Amino acid sequence: MKRIADDIPGYTYGSPDAAVSPVTLDDLERLKLTVGWNDEDRDFLKLAGEVLGDQTRAVVLHWRSRIIAAIPHLARHFRSLEGLPLPGYLGRSNLRFEQWILDTCLRPHDQEWLNYQFAIALRHTGAKKNRTDSVRSTAYVPLSDILAFFAVMNESIRPFLAAKGHSNEAVDAMHRAWRKSMHIQSALMARAYTNPKNGRNEW
Amino acid sequence: MKRIADDIPGYTYGSPDAAVSPVTLDDLERLKLTVGWNDEDRDFLKLAGEVLGDQTRAVVLHWRSRIIAAIPHLARHFRSLEGLPLPGYLGRSNLRFEQWILDTCLRPHDQEWLNYQFAIALRHTGAKKNRTDSVRSTAYVPLSDILAFFAVMNESIRPFLAAKGHSNEAVDAMHRAWRKSMHIQSALMARAYTNPKNGRNEW
Repeated sequence: MKRIADDIPGYTYGSPDAAVSPVTLDDLERLKLTVGWNDEDRDFLKLAGEVLGDQTRAVVLHWRSRIIAAIPHLARHFRSLEGLPLPGYLGRSNLRFEQWILDTCLRPHDQEWLNYQFAIALRHTGAKKNRTDSVRSTAYVPLSDILAFFAVMNESIRPFLAAKGHSNEAVDAMHRAWRKSMHIQSALMARAYTNPKNGRNEW
Repeated sequence: MKRIADDIPGYTYGSPDAAVSPVTLDDLERLKLTVGWNDEDRDFLKLAGEVLGDQTRAVVLHWRSRIIAAIPHLARHFRSLEGLPLPGYLGRSNLRFEQWILDTCLRPHDQEWLNYQFAIALRHTGAKKNRTDSVRSTAYVPLSDILAFFAVMNESIRPFLAAKGHSNEAVDAMHRAWRKSMHIQSALMARAYTNPKNGRNEW
């Protein structure tokens, strides 16, 4: 699998001792059916992965430095509790964020993908945030921030998809597949936030 | 406020005895900041409300009859536990769904809007589903189904926005504002599903 770096700290995709996601492959099929996922989306998301392959750093810097850094309630999640920069944390997290773009586009939708999706989700909750990088930062990223930020990831990807000279129709198709994947992933992220200690999980 | 019918059963927008949403106006501002909401979006969402005003029935029928009805795990939420149609339930819910389109576009983002958003969300959870219409159907709509279905509402609205002869740029702007609102509302929906009886709410 294509990697944005030989070694990405904390990147545990496919690790044999990874926790199994509570989301099943049947659940995933259900989500794909709901968003209208089809073979064209599969093919164009793969093309998006090729198009974005050498742009992942630019995309992540756009999100992190242009958007998140300018919004205090988002920026604090990569700063110390006193509001000071944590460049090591940000750098490691950015590398994983870059790799997530590739994994979004190029990985098969199998149990390993679900497991790592769940690992990512947990790392945003109070159960696991800060632990991968041994930092002191906010205790968790609110689910509402995450769901709203998918709007940014949905919209702002388009110029990057268009940067390699593909036809407008092909860019549209890549963008459509990307958005469907974002909606699937927003649902997967929410799973880690809906685990009542008592009562039914209505995820 | 524009209504799609003089009397919509169970439509309690602005009711003086409505429950207050746990989501505050500050939370809403945070969500709007995250999705990049601006004055252009406000104006073009209002225009979308005018464009969609006489199309709400067509939009809801497209979603309910063309899409949801064809996906068994979604269709069951408007059927009896034995899988039989509940036309009264569907009809009343469709009227509220139509009105929701207008409210999305035309209502100010104030506490009343937040309160009714929360009422809508609760009516999808085990706490309130079926009670408004006194029916026996599925106990709740899974949050994952809802978050994924926002992909459909995001994409399929465009032809309706384009149906009144506006320029491509104006349709783009209406569609962009609509998508941002959908992302804000997906976050608001999730609030009703993240209420652990014990432990921290990380919404």
